[in-house]
Amino acid sequence: MRRGAISVVAVVALAGVVASMAPASGQADGEAAPIYGVELPPGYRDWRLISVARVGGPLNDLRAKLGNEVAIKAYREGKRPFPDGTIVARLAWRQVPSGETNEAVGRSLERGSSADALQKLLADSFEAGPPTNVQVMVKDSRKYASTGGWGFAQFNDGKPADEAVHKTCFPCHEPAKDRDFVFTRYAP
Amino acid sequence: MRRGAISVVAVVALAGVVASMAPASGQADGEAAPIYGVELPPGYRDWRLISVARVGGPLNDLRAKLGNEVAIKAYREGKRPFPDGTIVARLAWRQVPSGETNEAVGRSLERGSSADALQKLLADSFEAGPPTNVQVMVKDSRKYASTGGWGFAQFNDGKPADEAVHKTCFPCHEPAKDRDFVFTRYAP
Repeated sequence: MRRGAISVVAVVALAGVVASMAPASGQADGEAAPIYGVELPPGYRDWRLISVARVGGPLNDLRAKLGNEVAIKAYREGKRPFPDGTIVARLAWRQVPSGETNEAVGRSLERGSSADALQKLLADSFEAGPPTNVQVMVKDSRKYASTGGWGFAQFNDGKPADEAVHKTCFPCHEPAKDRDFVFTRYAP
Repeated sequence: MRRGAISVVAVVALAGVVASMAPASGQADGEAAPIYGVELPPGYRDWRLISVARVGGPLNDLRAKLGNEVAIKAYREGKRPFPDGTIVARLAWRQVPSGETNEAVGRSLERGSSADALQKLLADSFEAGPPTNVQVMVKDSRKYASTGGWGFAQFNDGKPADEAVHKTCFPCHEPAKDRDFVFTRYAP
């Protein structure tokens, strides 16, 4: 049981609810997520970029981590642990074949030159498609003392995911304890 | 000759100079790029996110497109052509194995449950590594009338790339003429 459970935890925490494909609007509706009571922070879609990532199948997504002012300042100054008030938002989108690459190299492919290399490039190039879900980490060292000072939440189309999903958040972040439970590094 | 040349154009424009691995600082130094005279816009690293993408081998990068105020407003309002003053910055980083995924699922893998699926997930998960280069598109419909109203530039570690690189910009963007020469779509 234990090993199966841990695998599921890891995948669920990375995935959020894979099936949720409705658009994430970036609009907060004030509904608090279970366990931690975290709400979708207003205006998070306007926050600055921390970094980007890709997660493979079965998720196959592209993701961006955005940070509020407190988060960005802490990242740039290398301040750890993150100060109270830090919020990190992880946005993710289904990866879809890249129109950018397809259109740019399509004609060259048709003409047959360097076709193998370009075909490979093309098959392995993706852009952001439909959004999947948004995950949030909020630092409040007193309120969330039992989970490393972090409150976690996942929103599907702006609505909080269920309690089972939220139980996976902290166990999955525990391996990053030496980085204040935050996996993402700042991308210069 | 022509077919070979076009393939190279496509790859170079997507890649920038692949060999350039020095960090992009996000700091403008005021040095103008050849042909278009575009400078690295101050503060671009603080701009809002348009979308993310991945380009396959031999580039193997993860990229983020950021936009200035004019760009973000035009994207959100669906305004085309983009108004003068629009600037889009494309940042890119070498993709490296994802510490996020590795650390989160590593233990489950060791315990052997769902190992195949998780191994696949792990092998196909990446995060942003060292920056490669920054590319910029600036809209000025009069100044750049002969190239669709856009001026282009690429900066390697804050320094403009050479003229040969800049000759590849517009030919590669031409297929996106119906979208005002901009490939990237806004990711909600």
